Amino acid sequence: MTTTAAAGLTTVGIVGTGLIGTSVGLALRAAGVDVLLDDVDQQRVRLAGQLGAGRGWPAGEAVQHVVLAVPPARLPDAVLRWQREQPDSTLSDVSSVQVEPRRAAAARDADLSRWCGGHPMAGRERSGPAAARGDLFAGRTWVLCPDAHTSEAARADAAWVARTCRGQVTMLEPAEHDEAVALVSHLPQLVASLLAAQLEAVPAPALLLAAQGLRDTTRLAGSDAQLWAQIVAANRPAVLAALRPLQRDLGRLVDALGSGDPTAAVEWLVRRGSAGHRRLPGKHGGRVVGFASVPVVVADRPGELARLLADAATIGVNVEDLAVEHDPGRAVGVIELAVKPERTGVLIDGLQARGWAVHPAPSTEEMGRGVEQVLPHR
Amino acid sequence: MTTTAAAGLTTVGIVGTGLIGTSVGLALRAAGVDVLLDDVDQQRVRLAGQLGAGRGWPAGEAVQHVVLAVPPARLPDAVLRWQREQPDSTLSDVSSVQVEPRRAAAARDADLSRWCGGHPMAGRERSGPAAARGDLFAGRTWVLCPDAHTSEAARADAAWVARTCRGQVTMLEPAEHDEAVALVSHLPQLVASLLAAQLEAVPAPALLLAAQGLRDTTRLAGSDAQLWAQIVAANRPAVLAALRPLQRDLGRLVDALGSGDPTAAVEWLVRRGSAGHRRLPGKHGGRVVGFASVPVVVADRPGELARLLADAATIGVNVEDLAVEHDPGRAVGVIELAVKPERTGVLIDGLQARGWAVHPAPSTEEMGRGVEQVLPHR
Repeated sequence: MTTTAAAGLTTVGIVGTGLIGTSVGLALRAAGVDVLLDDVDQQRVRLAGQLGAGRGWPAGEAVQHVVLAVPPARLPDAVLRWQREQPDSTLSDVSSVQVEPRRAAAARDADLSRWCGGHPMAGRERSGPAAARGDLFAGRTWVLCPDAHTSEAARADAAWVARTCRGQVTMLEPAEHDEAVALVSHLPQLVASLLAAQLEAVPAPALLLAAQGLRDTTRLAGSDAQLWAQIVAANRPAVLAALRPLQRDLGRLVDALGSGDPTAAVEWLVRRGSAGHRRLPGKHGGRVVGFASVPVVVADRPGELARLLADAATIGVNVEDLAVEHDPGRAVGVIELAVKPERTGVLIDGLQARGWAVHPAPSTEEMGRGVEQVLPHR
Repeated sequence: MTTTAAAGLTTVGIVGTGLIGTSVGLALRAAGVDVLLDDVDQQRVRLAGQLGAGRGWPAGEAVQHVVLAVPPARLPDAVLRWQREQPDSTLSDVSSVQVEPRRAAAARDADLSRWCGGHPMAGRERSGPAAARGDLFAGRTWVLCPDAHTSEAARADAAWVARTCRGQVTMLEPAEHDEAVALVSHLPQLVASLLAAQLEAVPAPALLLAAQGLRDTTRLAGSDAQLWAQIVAANRPAVLAALRPLQRDLGRLVDALGSGDPTAAVEWLVRRGSAGHRRLPGKHGGRVVGFASVPVVVADRPGELARLLADAATIGVNVEDLAVEHDPGRAVGVIELAVKPERTGVLIDGLQARGWAVHPAPSTEEMGRGVEQVLPHR
C-alpha cells in the first residue's frame, strides 16, 4: 500500500457512492486520505461509510479534490454544482464516456481547467456500495483524458487519485478514449444484449441444449439497462461507428447464407474472429500466455479442491489458473489446472502418485494455445 | 460407472477419433464394451487407442453398432459406406446438424431404418483425441433424433450408447433439434466471431482498455473455422431464421442511434437481453442457484489457494464454485468463493480468524442473484 507523495492530497470528496465511488473511497482511506462522501441517496452514504469508504460530507466543508462518480448523464450538472460549492478544489470523474459530458458542461460555462476526465477500466456486474472493494482498480488500466484546457494541478491530482487506487495510468485524448470503449466495452455489451434478447423466443426444450458457450457470450446481458442506455446515448457517434462495420459483416453473412454457398463466408468470418480474438491481452497484460491444462476428476465435497491444490503446491508446481467444470447431476467435477507446459510432467506424475485421477496430458501440439483455450466448455 | 443392461451392446465401432469419438470410446471402454476405432488418419486411431478408447478395427470385423463421429459434411458418405460394410449393425451419429445429412443420405438410398441421429451437447474448444475424456458427456444433454423411419433397434442402441456415456437423453425431432442448436449454439458462435472480427481494426492502445466482458463475449471466437463453416452451411435455413431477428434488432438499434433519442431503444434492448439471459439453465440443470460471493485477497504463489480452500474445508463450508481474479502486474489476486448465502457468516468469521483478508460480504439484497453474477468482471 504505497502512495506517491507527489500531489499528496489529504482531503478528497467523492460524489456518488456506487460501486466505483465507494471503491475509490476504500482505496483512498487505506492510503490515509480523509474522504468525504456525498450521494443523492443518504442510505448509500451511510453504507459506504460503514464499509470504511469515508465519512458524511458536512455542508460547506472544503476538500482539495472532488471525484465525481456519477453516471455520464448526470456529470455536467455535477461538475457545475461542485465547482460552485468547492471553488478551490480540482475535479475528476470516472465516466465511461468523456467527450459528450465535457462538451455539455463547457456549453454551460464550466471551468474546464479545474477538471480532468478519467475512466478506471474496472467494474463488476454487481453494483452499489456493498459490492465495492478497495482493490477494485489494482493493476487495472485507469485512463486519464486531460485536454488542452486541463490545468497541470487538475491532471496531477487526478493521476494521484488513480495511482493511489493502484490503477495503471494511461493517457488518451477524450475522443480516443470514447472510440476505444465503443469498441472494447460498449459494442460487446450491445452484442451480448442482442444475442440474449433472441433467447426470449427460444422454446423451453431448446434451452436444455444450451451449454457454456452461450453462457459466456451472453454473460454481460445481465447489466443495468438504464446505465447502459445513458452510456450508449452519450457515446452515440463512436458506438455507431463501431456498430456499422459489424452490421455490414452480419449483412454479408446473411446474404451468403441466403444465396449460394455459405461455406466460404462462414469460414472467412470465423478466421477473422480468431485473428481478432488473439489480439486481446491476456494475463499480466501481455499476449495470452501458453499454459497447459491438466484435468483432474474430484469429488464434489468440501476439501477435495483444497487437497488437490495442496498436493500441487507440495509437488512445487505453480497453478497459474484453474477452472471448475460442473457436471450437473453427479457427484464429481473436473478441475482443470493451468500450469506452465514444461511443468505438466512433474505435476501429472506427482498427482498420480498421490492417487488423483489425472487425465492424459494434451499432446504438445495442442498445448500453448493459451489458458483461455483450456477454460471454457461449450 | 453403471451401465443399463437393456440393449447390452458388447461390440461398438467408432468412425472418427476426434474429441467426440474418442470420448465416446473412453466411456464405452470403461463400461466394458469392446470398441473398434476407425479414422482416415491412422495416427489418430493409434493415439485414441493409447488413451484407452478402443483398438484398431481389423477389416471386415463385425460390430453390433457403429457410432459415426465425423463432421456433418462427411456424414452421408459415412452412413452409406458403413451400412455396406456392416450389414447387420445399427448406426448412430453425433452430428451438430441432423436434417440435411439425413436428407442427403436418403437421396442416395441409405437405409434410414438402421440409423438413429443423435447429438451430445458437449465439447471443448480443444479438438482431437488428446482432448478426449471419458466423462465428457456425464450429466450433459444428449439429443436423440429418431424419425418415422428409425427402427426400434436403432433407437434403443443409440440410447444405450448415450446412457452408457452418462448423457441425459432428450428426444427431439430432427428439425426441432436443428432449430434449437441454431439458436443456442450456432448463433452464439457467429455472434462471437462477428464481434471478435471487429477487434482486427482496434488500435493497439485501445486494446489496453479491454476487460473480462469482452473476453467472455468473444471466447468462442477461437473455434475451428472449417468445422463451423460446415455446420452452418448444413444448417443454413435454421441459422438464417435465427440470424434474421438479430439482424432486425441490430438494424433498429443502429437506426435509433443514428436519429432521435437512442436511450429508450438501448434500455429496451438491454432489458430484453436480461430477460433472455435469465432463461438460461444454471448449475445442476435448473435455474441459476443463488450463491453468495466471498472475495479473499491471496498472494499469487504456490499453495495460497490450497491453504485457503483447506481452511474453508476445515470451517466446514462447501465451496460451490470459485473464480480467480487476476490483477495484472501485482503479486496478489482475488479469489471469489461462491457459497450458499446462509454459510457466508460462518465462512467469513472463520477465514478472518485464520488471518485471511476477507472483504465485506455483499448485502443480503445483493445476494441470491446467482453465481453467474459473482464470477465475471468487466
